[in-house]
Amino acid sequence: MRSRIRAVEDAFRNEFDGYLVVNPINILYFTELVGAADSLGSAMLLIPGGEESTLHIHGVNYEWAKTEAKNCNVQLVKRGEDLVDLITEKIREMKLMKIGFDKMDFQTQQKVSKGLKRRAQLEAKADYVWDLRSVKDGGEVDRIQRAAQLTTEGMQTAQDTIKAGLREFEVAAEIEYKMRSHGSYGVAFDTSVASGLCSAFPHGGCSEKKLQTGDAVVVDIGAKYKNYCADMTRTFVVGKPSAKQEKIYNVVKEAQEKAFQKIMEGAKTKDVDAAARMVIAKAGLGEFFVHGLGHGIGLEVHEQPSLNSASKAVLKAGNVVTDEPGVYLVGYGGVRIEDTVLVKRSKGQRLTEGLGFLKKS
Amino acid sequence: MRSRIRAVEDAFRNEFDGYLVVNPINILYFTELVGAADSLGSAMLLIPGGEESTLHIHGVNYEWAKTEAKNCNVQLVKRGEDLVDLITEKIREMKLMKIGFDKMDFQTQQKVSKGLKRRAQLEAKADYVWDLRSVKDGGEVDRIQRAAQLTTEGMQTAQDTIKAGLREFEVAAEIEYKMRSHGSYGVAFDTSVASGLCSAFPHGGCSEKKLQTGDAVVVDIGAKYKNYCADMTRTFVVGKPSAKQEKIYNVVKEAQEKAFQKIMEGAKTKDVDAAARMVIAKAGLGEFFVHGLGHGIGLEVHEQPSLNSASKAVLKAGNVVTDEPGVYLVGYGGVRIEDTVLVKRSKGQRLTEGLGFLKKS
Repeated sequence: MRSRIRAVEDAFRNEFDGYLVVNPINILYFTELVGAADSLGSAMLLIPGGEESTLHIHGVNYEWAKTEAKNCNVQLVKRGEDLVDLITEKIREMKLMKIGFDKMDFQTQQKVSKGLKRRAQLEAKADYVWDLRSVKDGGEVDRIQRAAQLTTEGMQTAQDTIKAGLREFEVAAEIEYKMRSHGSYGVAFDTSVASGLCSAFPHGGCSEKKLQTGDAVVVDIGAKYKNYCADMTRTFVVGKPSAKQEKIYNVVKEAQEKAFQKIMEGAKTKDVDAAARMVIAKAGLGEFFVHGLGHGIGLEVHEQPSLNSASKAVLKAGNVVTDEPGVYLVGYGGVRIEDTVLVKRSKGQRLTEGLGFLKKS
Repeated sequence: MRSRIRAVEDAFRNEFDGYLVVNPINILYFTELVGAADSLGSAMLLIPGGEESTLHIHGVNYEWAKTEAKNCNVQLVKRGEDLVDLITEKIREMKLMKIGFDKMDFQTQQKVSKGLKRRAQLEAKADYVWDLRSVKDGGEVDRIQRAAQLTTEGMQTAQDTIKAGLREFEVAAEIEYKMRSHGSYGVAFDTSVASGLCSAFPHGGCSEKKLQTGDAVVVDIGAKYKNYCADMTRTFVVGKPSAKQEKIYNVVKEAQEKAFQKIMEGAKTKDVDAAARMVIAKAGLGEFFVHGLGHGIGLEVHEQPSLNSASKAVLKAGNVVTDEPGVYLVGYGGVRIEDTVLVKRSKGQRLTEGLGFLKKS
């Protein structure tokens, strides 16, 4: 199999003679390192078309990267050396004249540009990386699938645990323990156990609030496996759901299913979004579905492609996306149902699935 | 008490007539919202000197922010509206001519600049925010202290749990469960339980590897409480430590203590770093202490000030920093000891502390 670095070289060759990877998550992607992007520290991967690529990295991570990074040289940035100066020197030495990069903050870009004495052209173009990252290879799908299984197990624990009197964070503790002790590498994002009025906030979080009978509880969780994320939401009710809760729940469930049926290679993401949105609008709840239908997921929990009404993306086999419609009534409560879905040639495959949704205990 | 927004206004007034906050963590800081920066989505806080500030935020987070944000107006960015266009329009309307900002990626900066038709000046200057964020107020210290207590409890669990045959992630599961079930809002960073050869990598992470008798195990963990982080590392040995492990351990422990004694208002951070570095160098291990001594901590696990040999920072009362020397022998193993320390007028105060360090079971 062609390495990811080779693949991006093939892609940028006609436009650039080199490419600079600055976003730490993209560095993990190309080097196949398993570890936290946060702890990667400042590092840059220079990919000069045709020649060997080099990861420039500080001492704190050098030995680890040297041992574990694939497809590139690893070079130590010594104490006192400036990473940006070093990179611009390499670019000058190699006589690269047009360099693409994935992401840089304004100040860094200014510094690189100045270092190159504006003789070489520098251009932001992350598309080359996103075109690769958004289509998962077999190894990536396996990892997401494992993360999704662990996430489903965590959701089973949520269903088994939720009861009146428990605090939101206590439910989160049980969920996270299940995922972690079964092999999760950590959480893909902060676990959300949002009850009662907070369930009407899509990112309701998790506090010290006690669950009360009658509360809707939106549980949004994700395990991580070797850097890859999953994402799943279920909505429970403490005790017996009211007729209104049940009605909203069924609308959201139907919307999620209708969108799911649209997921396959070639589908326009805005059409997938529309399939869910129409169900909710027909029920008179359209204005309360306040976000897009979903997002790509992989090394990051929010990636390309986006599934929303403004998106121009078309699904490809190998995309992994979320399908997560919701209805949020401020001052009352909310419902969201979400699965992580693998896009295949003629259908979608739910990687998270099942569970009784409404808890009737 | 002066609000944080008022404080930054007072600070930038002589240089700018407005300030744009883009970094989501800074938005949490100024608005005092409790929640994950990741899930905040794209939002910008415009602080026009003297007039009321406005947080511009998308629908998915609007109702939450409207209910919970302090010190500012909250305005909905409607579906289809472009946040950057909207902000530049506000800047033009208010006739702001010189605007500072905290952080922006290159493309966003270009877009804002173009939107202002280059009539207004735009300048990156995060210092105004860092000057505030690096000195914690009473409420912030309380939260970090709570996070630090939870972290110490987690470390106690590590000490009680570690034994031959357990996998690294199983130890992590027990640690995280203790912290979470006692009230942590999640982890400040990916829990690291790095054993054996991996203990020689400062960010050794946590894998499926089984602990073996004789392994050094570097445990680096942090709880979070209402957005505030703590950070603590202890090194254990499975079974009886060897004479060499004990020797290295004692060097690192002495280095950590010597640096701790230097921590107080007015100390140069490079001198604090040097106090630890000298102990390790005298033991002939200088080249194996491959990172700086520590970093500020608060809303983020790595903040200003930096404590390293190149740093020009001087400690202020109210800084919270880590003191974490380490020695890493590639092919053998590593030792690191870390505490989170509050800087006071004439001393430091350990917020994480105690524990038997070496496990002799």
